[in-house]
Amino acid sequence: MDRTLDEADASEYDALVLSGGVINPDQLRTNEKAISFVRDFFKQHKPVAAICHGPQILISAGAVNGRKMTSVKSVSIDLKNAGAIWEDSEVVTDNGLVTSRKPKDLHAFNAKIVEEIKEGRHEDQYI
Amino acid sequence: MDRTLDEADASEYDALVLSGGVINPDQLRTNEKAISFVRDFFKQHKPVAAICHGPQILISAGAVNGRKMTSVKSVSIDLKNAGAIWEDSEVVTDNGLVTSRKPKDLHAFNAKIVEEIKEGRHEDQYI
Repeated sequence: MDRTLDEADASEYDALVLSGGVINPDQLRTNEKAISFVRDFFKQHKPVAAICHGPQILISAGAVNGRKMTSVKSVSIDLKNAGAIWEDSEVVTDNGLVTSRKPKDLHAFNAKIVEEIKEGRHEDQYI
Repeated sequence: MDRTLDEADASEYDALVLSGGVINPDQLRTNEKAISFVRDFFKQHKPVAAICHGPQILISAGAVNGRKMTSVKSVSIDLKNAGAIWEDSEVVTDNGLVTSRKPKDLHAFNAKIVEEIKEGRHEDQYI
């Protein structure tokens, strides 16, 4: 870890990657500073990527309604209930929003993140 | 553990208690046998109780729409998105459905479960 949430500002970064696990996203999704930090990337039209349980944070950030996404299977129903268009693919990209299901998808996930960062500003990345 | 899901049948039990944790409910909610077992308690109008992350299983069982419930805070938005009427109380009872937020609520949770089992069949416990 290089910085705490108090020190970090979305304007200093090109993109955000939310990792998975059953503990980290579960804790971050109720942390107001973390949610605000995540929302800033959408407001600044920057790429946001999430894998495994990471998309739980995006539900709490109010960022998934109408977006094409994937996730670990257990979270799929929560994403659908939040308005996401969920599909079972190794990586799903929707205008700067990149999601994958599990560690096995990392190669495709990373490649898409690089692609989205190279594209730069995503006008359709919104919240 | 006394029995596996293959050996257990809801008709042999008076009630179901789903415990919490970040791993167990996350795994059970994608287990078709577990979901079917949970749904049978609702179909048989028997008390169902869930604490902490346990209500995630009830989302996947399609059992929360229109029901008054509580849970650990991180799951509250997923319950609301699934149609539950979520409140921040130590225990919430809705016609045979008993939910609590965290280990600190266990005394109230257990007391309500006993009460609901003593009441017996709950016609308004449905799925």
